[in-house]
Amino acid sequence: MKSENGNSTRRMPIGVIRGGSLESRDDLVVVEEPLEIRLAGLGEPGPGRPIAITMRTPGSDTNLALGFLHGEGLIRSRRDVASIRESGTNVVRVELAANVPFDFARLERNFYTSSSCGVCGKASLEAVTAMLPRRTVDSMARVSAELLCSLAGKVRPAQPVFQGTGGLHAACLFDAQGNLLEAFEDVGRHNALDKLVGARLLADALPLSACVLLLSGRASFELLQKAAAAGVPVVAAVGAPSSLAVDLADQTGILLVGFLRQESFNVYAHRERLR
Amino acid sequence: MKSENGNSTRRMPIGVIRGGSLESRDDLVVVEEPLEIRLAGLGEPGPGRPIAITMRTPGSDTNLALGFLHGEGLIRSRRDVASIRESGTNVVRVELAANVPFDFARLERNFYTSSSCGVCGKASLEAVTAMLPRRTVDSMARVSAELLCSLAGKVRPAQPVFQGTGGLHAACLFDAQGNLLEAFEDVGRHNALDKLVGARLLADALPLSACVLLLSGRASFELLQKAAAAGVPVVAAVGAPSSLAVDLADQTGILLVGFLRQESFNVYAHRERLR
Repeated sequence: MKSENGNSTRRMPIGVIRGGSLESRDDLVVVEEPLEIRLAGLGEPGPGRPIAITMRTPGSDTNLALGFLHGEGLIRSRRDVASIRESGTNVVRVELAANVPFDFARLERNFYTSSSCGVCGKASLEAVTAMLPRRTVDSMARVSAELLCSLAGKVRPAQPVFQGTGGLHAACLFDAQGNLLEAFEDVGRHNALDKLVGARLLADALPLSACVLLLSGRASFELLQKAAAAGVPVVAAVGAPSSLAVDLADQTGILLVGFLRQESFNVYAHRERLR
Repeated sequence: MKSENGNSTRRMPIGVIRGGSLESRDDLVVVEEPLEIRLAGLGEPGPGRPIAITMRTPGSDTNLALGFLHGEGLIRSRRDVASIRESGTNVVRVELAANVPFDFARLERNFYTSSSCGVCGKASLEAVTAMLPRRTVDSMARVSAELLCSLAGKVRPAQPVFQGTGGLHAACLFDAQGNLLEAFEDVGRHNALDKLVGARLLADALPLSACVLLLSGRASFELLQKAAAAGVPVVAAVGAPSSLAVDLADQTGILLVGFLRQESFNVYAHRERLR
């Protein structure tokens, strides 16, 4: 479990209204704070250039930054990163390796953006289209319905902070046998997935060709875009998918499952990956 | 009910797995599509300049654009808008009135942004701080616990598309007597609120000093920022608030309620507004 509970919740006094009476007590609230991601070329001095800011739950910030950069196609593996460090509170500075192209002017133009939604910040429809993966996920992976249903019971145990606050999304990665590999929580669902992809990038474990990605909430276009970039062949969501998520799964060869329960689920794309 | 069901859902073939067997049937999926918001000065020819793109559920697009611009502080009332029109599919063009400042260079720098998260796109921490409302909500409004609890039962009926798809957030506005004034649904919770604020702006009904805003999900920093900009004194969420949402409610004088149910809720800020 990679969740770092230390600074991800805050204890505060609240009032509880029940049956017409008010009771004061302490409660846990999930922490939301801005994280600034800064990028620097190899050997470039100074604090780097700010390229994105996201409202996230503190913890696993370097993973978040790496996963974000991967989802945007700026880095492909840990070899593309010369160094990464937390630079004061709420800032992560990533120094790119020598061979990694870094056109800041282009970034400013097309990509003054977000990790909490990723799509936004693209100030034109063309820029969104440009985010679409060019090819299908490279994986022969197939999964059984039994395995997928068995994962439904594994989401809540992987959400320690959610259990305390009710305020987070989770992204969980399982291997082909249904073993939990990674689990991250965040106030932003896209941040949870970025943290997960960043952790696997650091572990040199991309692409995720033999894995199942489980999302605690709904499946949007952007989550599928990040999953496709990471090479995930199977995405299962506890909530509903959007039309564009279904389209993207369809185009990139991803088995997309929604409304995952322990006894049932819906299949929206590439059911041939079901055994 | 302002939800325009016409193009907000798509019927598509899916597979349903239950008890080990696969059944094919048609199901409704909520539509997610990009909307580009373009801004033009008074009398400026051409398509306007793209300032934001958001992944939204089609419908009420002009409201969405107006609410977004209001939340960002670019317009304050309908008098600040000379014209607004849908310009082809998925594009809204807003022409500002003569007296409205429109510094596109500044926008590009600070605000190449999003309506699905609003905070992102601000590429520096200073830019986020600059979003904070400068003063408290101007309202003496107080509400009873009974009234708030009574609203809990009114969310689902105001979510016709959710009931078909399970895939949307809702933002609902009530008057001081608990009557529903506006209800909007969207795949993005921020879009739902932008649509609501935009509708009230068009009706010349801002600020919302005597209203209660009900959110179907969690309460984030950005939703509170938009609510404060619209002058809402009471925000009630069915889900959990984040730490920054609580801080912002505290600073701006908003009664913030979470986990709203028909018999109970939690109070996170300004409980003196409770009667």
